[in-house]
Amino acid sequence: MKIVVIGAGNVATHLSLAIQQTPFRIVQVFSRSEERADALANRLQTRYTSQLHEITTDADLYLFAVKDDALAEVITQVPDNKGLWVHTAGSVPMNVFKGFTARYGVLYPLQTFSRDRAVDVRHVPFFIEAASQEDEQVLRFFAGQLSNNVQLLDSEKRKYVHLAAVFANNFSNHMVVLAYQLLESQGISPEALLSLIDETAAKIHSLSPLQAQTGPAVRNDLNVMNMQMELLTNPMMKELYRLISKSIREIMNSEQ
Amino acid sequence: MKIVVIGAGNVATHLSLAIQQTPFRIVQVFSRSEERADALANRLQTRYTSQLHEITTDADLYLFAVKDDALAEVITQVPDNKGLWVHTAGSVPMNVFKGFTARYGVLYPLQTFSRDRAVDVRHVPFFIEAASQEDEQVLRFFAGQLSNNVQLLDSEKRKYVHLAAVFANNFSNHMVVLAYQLLESQGISPEALLSLIDETAAKIHSLSPLQAQTGPAVRNDLNVMNMQMELLTNPMMKELYRLISKSIREIMNSEQ
Repeated sequence: MKIVVIGAGNVATHLSLAIQQTPFRIVQVFSRSEERADALANRLQTRYTSQLHEITTDADLYLFAVKDDALAEVITQVPDNKGLWVHTAGSVPMNVFKGFTARYGVLYPLQTFSRDRAVDVRHVPFFIEAASQEDEQVLRFFAGQLSNNVQLLDSEKRKYVHLAAVFANNFSNHMVVLAYQLLESQGISPEALLSLIDETAAKIHSLSPLQAQTGPAVRNDLNVMNMQMELLTNPMMKELYRLISKSIREIMNSEQ
Repeated sequence: MKIVVIGAGNVATHLSLAIQQTPFRIVQVFSRSEERADALANRLQTRYTSQLHEITTDADLYLFAVKDDALAEVITQVPDNKGLWVHTAGSVPMNVFKGFTARYGVLYPLQTFSRDRAVDVRHVPFFIEAASQEDEQVLRFFAGQLSNNVQLLDSEKRKYVHLAAVFANNFSNHMVVLAYQLLESQGISPEALLSLIDETAAKIHSLSPLQAQTGPAVRNDLNVMNMQMELLTNPMMKELYRLISKSIREIMNSEQ
């Protein structure tokens, strides 16, 4: 199975490195930035182009891993071919390909990818979808070589998975950003939080997140909550503290 | 060193179990609930009481691990003795003991403790403080038997550590609660998020949380953000989405 990777950002890079561990072969990398195309192709020991019209037409799979807002336009410029076209975006429907090619689908990895941080994709859930049952089988086989966790999911449901990921990763990481800033502002080393953060993630393997919830808002400890609100001088953090504590109270009350 | 544990909740239980792994000996457990006092004492193979005036006066260390709002009152009722009195609360100043005993301090473990979830406290940071240098040494020695990470910190700074922990644990866990509810409402198994959550915690061991931040708000991807806001029917989740995304934008702009 010959693969063209379209994109050279974090998702393209991490998926390409994972594909290298399979029997499949990446025959070409595309990026508008010649420098980034070259860098990724070099890492994969394959060819590259920065021109969409130079994308080879004899590959079996075209993996579109570009920014959401660039995707629709890139699709219009890839030369006609008989390969299967798939994108990796959580919130873009499969039908973005409709009218531009006959064979298409989606391969959405539920993970956060950063530069300079290796990820073992074998445990990453891949949500797949294809326009035909045949290509669904192709994608299931392909994704199954990358990960032990492959699930079929339509475009409408996939949006909710992406949205849940924004809460579970982006927003929870932002809470850690704010915690770090708070300690740094007091001259306290923020690395003291690492063991707590590890346990926060680890405990929900054995407890539900709702069971795992602790803190002043759960106990409705108004003394501590008022005191902590007073400590916060940043208006945005104060408002976040108020709103998130309120949301915790609402959920606790609705569970009782 | 003979220890009395005052309290039988999550913090008291986990610290008691950790103390059992040291040469120190817990000679008595107190809880107002006889059932809980009995259960913890049984687990530790020691004595218990549910009457404050029955607390033994010949111990070396009295560990107060009760709810913040109960602490001040409990302190007034413990029989006079020559031991060192310490509490475990992040947001209660050491001076809560002043006037009730001569030797006192604080031993604050920066961790989240839940029932039915074992925690290895050796990696948990303990923040200590004492009213005298002699007792600071006693506490340093005691905490050093429990953990590899013992730091001296005064009551004012300790409040900020507690507040940072609320963001890094309580609030980030709440984001996961909301993500789980969202997937459950769509009939999608929320366990799909576990690998993402593990990576969220793991990556900040090698990147700063700011470097680790990904998602539509970082990219200022208005298409995705507006679409995701529309998916949210719960007004509280919608408002949280709006406010947290705005906070992410503010921090990204201030870093540039």
